[in-house]
Order: sequence, then structure tokens, then C-alpha cells
Amino acid sequence: MTRDSTALAPMANAIRALAMDAVQAANSGHPGMPMGMADVATVLWTQFLKHDPAAPKWSDRDRFILSAGHGSMLIYALLHLTGYESPTMEDIRKFRQIDSVCAGHPENFLIPGVECTTGPLGQGLAMAVGFAMAERHLNAQFGDDLVDHHTWVVAGDGCLMEGINHEAVGLAGTLKLGRLNVLWDDNKITIDGDTSLSTNEDILGRYTASGWHVTSCDGHDFADIARALAEAKADPRPSLVACRTVIGKGAPNKQGGHNVHGAPLGADEIAAAREYLGWTSAPFEIPADILANWRTSAEAGKAARAEWEKRAAANPQSAELARRMAGDLPADTGFDAYIQSLIATPPKVATRKSSEMALEAFTANVPEMVGGSADLTGSNNTKTKSTAPFTPESYDGRYVYYGIREFGMAAAMNGMALHGGIIPYGGTFLVFSDYCRNAVRMSALQHVRAIYVFTHDSIGLGEDGPTHQPVEHVMSLRMIPNLLVFRPADAIETAEAWALALANKDRPSVLALTRQNLPPVRFDAEMKSAKGAYRLVSSSAARKVVLLATGSEVEVAMKVAAALEEKGLGADVVSVPCWELFDEQDAAYKADLLPADALKVSIEAGVTLGWQKYVGDGLSIGIDTFGASAPIDALYDHFGLTAEKIVPQILSRVS
Amino acid sequence: MTRDSTALAPMANAIRALAMDAVQAANSGHPGMPMGMADVATVLWTQFLKHDPAAPKWSDRDRFILSAGHGSMLIYALLHLTGYESPTMEDIRKFRQIDSVCAGHPENFLIPGVECTTGPLGQGLAMAVGFAMAERHLNAQFGDDLVDHHTWVVAGDGCLMEGINHEAVGLAGTLKLGRLNVLWDDNKITIDGDTSLSTNEDILGRYTASGWHVTSCDGHDFADIARALAEAKADPRPSLVACRTVIGKGAPNKQGGHNVHGAPLGADEIAAAREYLGWTSAPFEIPADILANWRTSAEAGKAARAEWEKRAAANPQSAELARRMAGDLPADTGFDAYIQSLIATPPKVATRKSSEMALEAFTANVPEMVGGSADLTGSNNTKTKSTAPFTPESYDGRYVYYGIREFGMAAAMNGMALHGGIIPYGGTFLVFSDYCRNAVRMSALQHVRAIYVFTHDSIGLGEDGPTHQPVEHVMSLRMIPNLLVFRPADAIETAEAWALALANKDRPSVLALTRQNLPPVRFDAEMKSAKGAYRLVSSSAARKVVLLATGSEVEVAMKVAAALEEKGLGADVVSVPCWELFDEQDAAYKADLLPADALKVSIEAGVTLGWQKYVGDGLSIGIDTFGASAPIDALYDHFGLTAEKIVPQILSRVS
Repeated sequence: MTRDSTALAPMANAIRALAMDAVQAANSGHPGMPMGMADVATVLWTQFLKHDPAAPKWSDRDRFILSAGHGSMLIYALLHLTGYESPTMEDIRKFRQIDSVCAGHPENFLIPGVECTTGPLGQGLAMAVGFAMAERHLNAQFGDDLVDHHTWVVAGDGCLMEGINHEAVGLAGTLKLGRLNVLWDDNKITIDGDTSLSTNEDILGRYTASGWHVTSCDGHDFADIARALAEAKADPRPSLVACRTVIGKGAPNKQGGHNVHGAPLGADEIAAAREYLGWTSAPFEIPADILANWRTSAEAGKAARAEWEKRAAANPQSAELARRMAGDLPADTGFDAYIQSLIATPPKVATRKSSEMALEAFTANVPEMVGGSADLTGSNNTKTKSTAPFTPESYDGRYVYYGIREFGMAAAMNGMALHGGIIPYGGTFLVFSDYCRNAVRMSALQHVRAIYVFTHDSIGLGEDGPTHQPVEHVMSLRMIPNLLVFRPADAIETAEAWALALANKDRPSVLALTRQNLPPVRFDAEMKSAKGAYRLVSSSAARKVVLLATGSEVEVAMKVAAALEEKGLGADVVSVPCWELFDEQDAAYKADLLPADALKVSIEAGVTLGWQKYVGDGLSIGIDTFGASAPIDALYDHFGLTAEKIVPQILSRVS
Repeated sequence: MTRDSTALAPMANAIRALAMDAVQAANSGHPGMPMGMADVATVLWTQFLKHDPAAPKWSDRDRFILSAGHGSMLIYALLHLTGYESPTMEDIRKFRQIDSVCAGHPENFLIPGVECTTGPLGQGLAMAVGFAMAERHLNAQFGDDLVDHHTWVVAGDGCLMEGINHEAVGLAGTLKLGRLNVLWDDNKITIDGDTSLSTNEDILGRYTASGWHVTSCDGHDFADIARALAEAKADPRPSLVACRTVIGKGAPNKQGGHNVHGAPLGADEIAAAREYLGWTSAPFEIPADILANWRTSAEAGKAARAEWEKRAAANPQSAELARRMAGDLPADTGFDAYIQSLIATPPKVATRKSSEMALEAFTANVPEMVGGSADLTGSNNTKTKSTAPFTPESYDGRYVYYGIREFGMAAAMNGMALHGGIIPYGGTFLVFSDYCRNAVRMSALQHVRAIYVFTHDSIGLGEDGPTHQPVEHVMSLRMIPNLLVFRPADAIETAEAWALALANKDRPSVLALTRQNLPPVRFDAEMKSAKGAYRLVSSSAARKVVLLATGSEVEVAMKVAAALEEKGLGADVVSVPCWELFDEQDAAYKADLLPADALKVSIEAGVTLGWQKYVGDGLSIGIDTFGASAPIDALYDHFGLTAEKIVPQILSRVS
């Protein structure tokens, strides 16, 4: 049903009223964007967005991404007004309070209708690229009958100025993601003031240069908005719609200025806005006729869903799509057979290589895995025989050439995982996890199964030197809540890490992998990495020392243990592939591995800060400075990570 | 002296020979870029770059930034051939060995002629923006006679695809940095293969949209290169020169392919290249006539320097410029008077506000301080009365509106610091340190005095919720080597942190500052923060407990201590504003603060992992999950960071 502006204007004002009242009640928040974009959002949600408020998880819905997440009241208002179960008006009244799902920024884990958590600028748009990739991929695999929807984004000047925008726009243009439409809140205002303070960019020119379709509209003219959105939807390229808006539109004395961006309007200005808008209802009350208009605005979406349900019931592929969308793994992931092959022939390879071998097995059995690399395919060993390139000509491909865009890659992975139906993995060098660090954090915050393949994980990469040698990275990734960080020691631990990463559907994983070859240290099929740490070598003499190590330093620890045993000192070696899983074990298991009466020594080619958690006042062997450029053996010697240099330090402590 | 192509071609081939021979000897490295860009570099260094090999630190030299740092042999060859003292041919022979200054990537701290460390893609170009800003700023302050030079950049496809490129290009375009010229190695190849695999961007169109001048040239036609560089130099806008090159030019069977990017050519191909180039000398030998041509190529630069020295000797401002370039602070930074004012009237303000107060004092007395914010000026409290805006119309301004470009800001700060004559500081929210994390790491690696003002440093920011609440950030910044991380507790500690950050000329600092008000806890002028940690409150009863806290939690620790004392339990409070400085104290000082026989308890509104270093098997009170959206008091209670919730935990441990 198409409504004219006499119906639409009061509907948009309902958004404005809720936004200004909620922010005022919280005495905190951002009224400027919801009020400025209320008209555009009203047109989008009533005339374009395919959705059914009764089924927020319907897989073929259009996705709406509020990249400018500070304007959270926009999406809370839209979800409530159109009739979603969550948020309730009570939630909106308690905007930004600890017991409300209406958090300061929209959180996907609090409200089903919120597709993703936004707030860190640029990432909503960059995740939307992943949503649009997922749609085209599943469309290619399951057909138009089951998968055929659009991704709509509301973005602000901040989103377009952040570097990640460049990466996301470049990726979307290259991949020709025509189902992606970005509505830019072109209000000429940033927090510091007029946008001309910090940018003179011809934004439409830049998007055009990246292969996008661009158009503009008056963001307060309903017909013009509809014209522009129709044009964007029809164009085969990704579209940017510059919506010229007045920030805080409706607040007569403050609109158009930067002070309306992030602070309550105040009682006087709210009264003036009510007058200006002709809005006579009490705070948090919506007149029945306006609410009725909103509540019937998704009829086209409801009908589309009913049609879809019919088609799905008749489609033999529906069950497979449903499995993937639910995030359940296939019965056989290929893990068991692969582990047996490793036991039969234990390889001496780099863990980046054993990761590739594991990926060959998993990608052959788990069709929802979609891989890629930020231009380091041959170094990250992320491409397998099962994963053909994902290109505009073949969206059914399962391997993405992300280009030199680490942050854009990680955000796109989040978007694919959040869309559902895909388990994304992607690679870069561990040191460049810095470039995408906040997207890794957003994986963890949003509870998504994104799997990061971070290779070249220490000074062991050798000659490329300190800019490329991670020192603090493994430990600093361990600090991110809800993130599994694996640093496997050989091919079996690497396979286990992959299996655990795949099995943890509600959290992301990092695999830190070596460039250099490592000897096998494990020869059995028990899933030991699931406990995060385990005794790899038991002392033969009375145990005096427990050596804890990860990844490439497990080999070093085994040499140290052997040297200590030769001197009659009993030494265990505990491999610690995943701290977070170890921390989840019971006290008895931990005490058994780390007995109070032994000297505990950690060995890891990274910062020692943090290891005190396990070794107490024992020894931590590591690297607390930047690395250096040299062949690997020279570096391990230089930084004291050899048995020859470690053993005397232990002897001086136990004697 | 202008040379024709009959002289230039062998000179360029000398670069190619050194690059392929050094990479072959190291059996590691990147020959493709130096060989591809040898012709462009030869024209630049012989006809455009103003430099004097005898004076690598001459302040008015042109700056040459090898943003594509993996092609390090290009700059090593250029420095050696033109006659710089470092690197020697012996250094080049030992390329990528532990005792050579010719590291895998160029390091500013190893070779005086290397302006900055490069390798992390995009950052060289983004630092170059800072160099160009510094040049214009000092020019505005000291005049054409003393400061009048250009910044030249060699960048590859990777540098142009990274998100930071977008930020750097936008900033340079907005600021109209016409002295910045970027030579793009347009070779159509990335590591994964042809650039069309991952990008379809019209790069010249994008740069034009950002206000840049663009031109192209045949990167193997000396005259065309010279034409393009002259055009770039003359244009008042920043310039991008697309140099169409063949990667690995000179290796007849491998040139133009992506396999020549990052691996030795091999003996056979090197022999073929010698044949192809007509290069008959032995490895690491340069024919005398070619070397003589190189060694006389900087005559114009030498003459320019002689002229400059004459002008400088006659210029009354030279001493002040020299002081700033040396990085020495003025005799009075304003610190002492400001501390006395705080003692007279201890304010209860947020540390972001006390940072602003300190900045008012310091910026009034230290003219080389140039501040800014990534569009959070009013939140970061970074602007002072002494710092007028830095704009194209007034480059003498000392406050940069960086826009929503955290990574670009941090890299530009590095560039300004490395240029010399400026002490840059810049602000964003602490959580968005993630966005610029690798640039902070590069500050530390390069030993530069960049000062980061990271406000909103915990859940204490309240309603904006988990996307904006740093939890792991303070600790993970402490993991970066050579970085001072301050988290001051009140106005006096904040002033001390600023004074220490300014005094540490060879390392960067982070100030983590609160949004919320904090009561004063210090009332004396002794520079206690210099030791990193100090006893703020001494127990009155026999000491059983030592409470360690930072920033906003010092107030909490004082309440806990008071409650313990009421129960007859002696408790010290140790304020720990800077771990790194505390770690540098002697063992006696540490043992006195953290006696073995006391229960040690840390209180910090962030992850507990790491605190075990100081508290051993004591208690760590903190937040090991993401935050939440609510008013501050509700959050501190929810996360257990109140005396009421902490005291019982301590009592159960000491009883």
C-alpha cells in the first residue's frame, strides 16, 4: 500500500516524538539523526523494506542496517511502531537503562529485529557488504525462490569518512553487489561542526569511481525519497543515495546545528518541537490512527513471507537452507577421518600449512564455509580445492579475494555470519590483526562465528622484521572477551582448533599460525584441545618443573624438559592451545596441570605480561621488546628462546 | 644537473642489480618493486629530491617516504649510491641479517636517511601527510628562508587499497597540501595476482574527488617521468602520479608477474637479467662511472643546503627552529605554576577536563605542541586557547580537525613527530584506539613522541554501552613495547602524566582519561608519577592489605581502604598511573610498595588479566566481560566495582 505525504508525515513525526522523548527521559542519547532521517526511514519501511514484524528471523527478509548506530532510537521506534514484539514501549521508556533492551547503541543480542550491533563508525556499512555478499551467495546456491532480498543501510558522515568505508565501498563495487543500497544522511554536520571543517570530498564522485550507482534526494520530500529509493533498488550496481537532510529536523530552534547531534533537546525545545510538528500526544503515546497506519505498513512483507513459506514448503533444498541458517554443522565435518590420516602420517609442516590441510577436509564437508584472505592467499594458506573464487560472475564461489582490506574483510565476515547460512573465515598476518582489531572485537560482542586465520604469528617469520613480527598480539587478543584464541603446536592441534572454532557457533575464534615448519608433538585422536590445556609430556623423575608453552614454543619446551630430565629434574610439558577454554575447566583439572609445588615456567614467543596468571612467581620466557630482521634461527637465539638459554635460568631457580 | 637517458639507464640498473643481488644473497626479500620503480626513483633522486647525503638530518631537506616498505632495497640502494654514510655496501651485502642496518623493511632507528619505518601498508603515505603538514606549519611559523621543502612518496597498490589511504587522502585534500607528491607504482599486480581480482576502482577518479591533482606517466620513460614529476611539483594541490610500471622490470622471464613480488629471482633469472640489462659487474660491484654519476647527482641539493646554511646563520629565528627540531623542551613548560594552582584549588573534575586544564598551561608555553581530535574535540577536551585551527588558510594554526579518521590522525601525528619541530597530540575515545592501534605501535617502534589523548576510558562513560566502553584496551596498550600508558587518578596526576609524556622525547605516550568527574586524591607537588606507582595512602593499623588502583578506581580503593581500616585491617593504597615507569624502578622500591607479606588487591575497571604480575595470587577486581548501557552508578554496582562489593571479598581472603 502506498501512502501519500498526508499519511506519511505524521508517521515520521511519531519517530521524531519517540526519539526526542526517549533521549530526554534518559537525559542521554542522540536525537539529531533519528529526527533528521525520520522521513527517509518512513518511506523505506513503508514502501520498500520487505519484512514481517511477526517473523524477525525469516531468512528471506530484507536486512536493515543502522550503520549510524548512535541514532538507535530510529530503529527502536521503527521496530516498535511496525509491530515487532521487541522493543515494547516500556523498553523505549527505559532507553539506556540497565534493564532495557533499548541500549545506547543497537545490540543484535538484545533485540531480534536488530541485525547487527552498530556504533563503531563505518562498521555497519562494512558489515552490510557482508550481508549483501551472503545474499548473493545463498541465492546462487538455493535460487530465487528461497533467497531474494536486499540490504538497506542508513549511514552518516562519520561512516563515510572512516577508512573502513573505502575498503567496504571498494569491495562492494568490485563484487557488483547491486542488492546493497546505502542511504546517506547528508546533513553537512559532524560533532566538531560543519563537515567542511574536515572534508572537502566529492562523495558521489568517489563512489562513482568505485563502480557504484549514485543518486540524491531531498530527504524531507516523501515523493523524491521514493523516487531515489526505487532508482537505487533498480540499478544493478550498489547504490548510494545522498539524502539531503536537516539534522534534528523538527526541533525548530536547534535543527541544522551540531548541538542537536548527541544531547537531549531539553524540555523547552521539546515543547517547541511538539508545537512545530503539531504533535499533541503525551510522551511515549502514539495516536491510534498513526499507530494503525504503522501497524499495517508491512502488509506487503507479510504477503511476501506467506508466498515464500509456500515456495519453501515445496522446495527440496529448504531443509539444507534451514540447517545452514540455524548454524548447525553437517553430521560429518570430515574431522575424524582427517585426524586418522594425521595419526597415520604425522607431518612436519608449518601450522599455516596444517591449517590448509584441515581446511581441505572441512571445506569439502561443510558447504557453508566461505573463506578468503586480505591479499595473502598463498601465505595464509586459506584457499582449498573446494572453494572456487567468489566473483560477480560466480557468486556461488566460496573464496573471496578481499584485497588489501583487513578491516573491510573482518567486518564483511561479521556481516556474512550475521546474515546466517555462512561460516566465514579469512586470513591476514597476525600483526595486521591490529588493522581489523575492532571488527574482531565486534565479532565477539555480537556472538558470531567468524574465524580468523592469522599466520606468521611470531618472530619466527624471520627476515621481514619488527613491523611484521607480532609480539603483543596473541596476548592482547586473549584480552578480548568472548573470543577463542588458539595457538596450536602441530597438525593435530591445528585440526582440533578448526573443529572447535566450527563447533562454537556463538563466538568467534582466532587461529595464530606459524610460517615455519613444526615437528608433530601429538599422535593420538583424543580431542585434547577442547580443555584448552593438557599435559603433553609427563615427568619421569619427581616433578619439579611444569613448562607451559603454546604453538611453536611447545617444541622448545620439550627440548627444555628433556634437558632437565637429563639432570634428574622432573619436568612436565603442558601445551596450552587455548586459554579461554582452559579457564572454563574445573579447579581440580587446573590444579592437576599446574600443581602448587612445582616451578611453573611459560615459554611463548610474545610478551610475558599475562602469563603470571598461570605461572605465579615462576618464570616467564618471552619477548618484551620489538623483534628484529634476521633468519629465524638467529632470532630465536638472539631473543633467548632456545633450550640452551632457558635451561640455565630454570636451574638457577630450582637449585 | 640534468642527465639524459643514456646516463640514467645504467644508474637505474645499478638499483636493479643491488636489489636482485641482495635479495638473492639473503634468500629472502622483495625484488619486484625496486626493479619496477628503479627508473622513477632515479629521476626523482637525480632531478627533483632536494637532499645532501652529507647531512641526512638537514632540517630543510625534501622528505622521501617509501610507503611500500617491502621494497626496502630501493632506498638502501639510493642512499648508498648517492653517498650517504649509511648503509655501506657491507650492510647491503648482509641485507636482512641480524647485524645489518639493512633490515627487511626500512627502519628509521637504524639508518639516519630513512625518514620513517614502513611496511604496514598505507601508513607510509599517511605519515607523509603528517610530514607535509609539519612542513607547511613550520613554514608558516619560520618563513620560506628556513622551511621550504617537499614530501615525496613511493606507494604501491596495497597502500592505495588500505582504508587508511582514504583517510590520508581526504585529510591531505582538505588541507590542500600541495607539497605532497605521491608516486604510485601502478603495476597492476598484488600478491594474490592481477589487481582486477580485488578492485575495479578508478583510482585517479577517486583522488580527483578528494581534491587532488592527478597525472600519469610511463614509469620506464625518463623524460615522461620528469614531465610528470615537474607537473606534480608545480601543482598547488597534493599530487598523485600514476607511474605505469612493469613489476620486476629487468628480469626478462619473470617481470610483470606476481611471483617477482616477494621472492628471490633465483640464480638463473639473475643471470638472464644481467644479460638483459647488459650488467656485467659482479654482485655488489658498481662500475666506477655509474657510481660517479650517482655520487654527483645531489649537487643541486648540496648547493641548496649551503645557501640555506647562509640564510640560517643570518636568521634570528634559527635557534628556535633548531631547538624544536632537536626535540628539546623550552626551559619553562608551565608545569610548576600549574601544579601550584592545583594545590591551591584542587578541582573535582573529569581527567579529560584536567587534561584540558593541563593543556592550557602547556600549550601556552610549548609552541611546538600541535593538537587535534578525530571529530571529538568537545569530548576529548583537546582544544585550548593557544591552539587556533590549522587550515589551508592558516597553516600556523596548532589545532587539527582531523575528521572521523582515527588511523589517519595517528599516522599523521607520527609523520609530524618524525619530521621534527612538532610535538603532536590527538584525541579520540579509548575504545577507538582499536581503529589506530597499529599506528600507536608504529609510534613506539619508531621512538617518536606522539601523545594520544584517549578519553571515555571505561564503563564510566555510561549509557553509550559496550561498543563504546573500553574493557581490554588499557591493558592491551600496556602490551605494546616502548609505549607509556598513563591512567591518572586526578588533576595532579594528569598534569604529571602530561609533563612526563612531554619529557620522554624518544617514546610515545597514551593518556587514558575519564568522562566522569573524579575527586582530587593528591595535594602535593612531588612528581610522584615519575616512578609509575607510589604509596598514596599508608595504613594506620598493621598493614595486611595493599590496594593497587589506577585512574577512576583510585577513589574506590580509598573507600575500600577506609572500610578495612574501620575493621582494624591496615590497608595501603598504591596509585599506579604508569606501569612502564614502575617497571623501571629498582627492586627495593618495588618491594617496599608491594611487600610479600601483604594481600595485594588490584582494582581497575578493565580486564583483570595482567594484574597478576603485581598481585600474584592476590585478588584482581575488574571487568572480564563486555560492558553495558546504563548510567554510571548502575554500571559500577552491576560490575561490582564498589567498596560495598569489594570489601567482603578481601575480608574473606584475610580471615
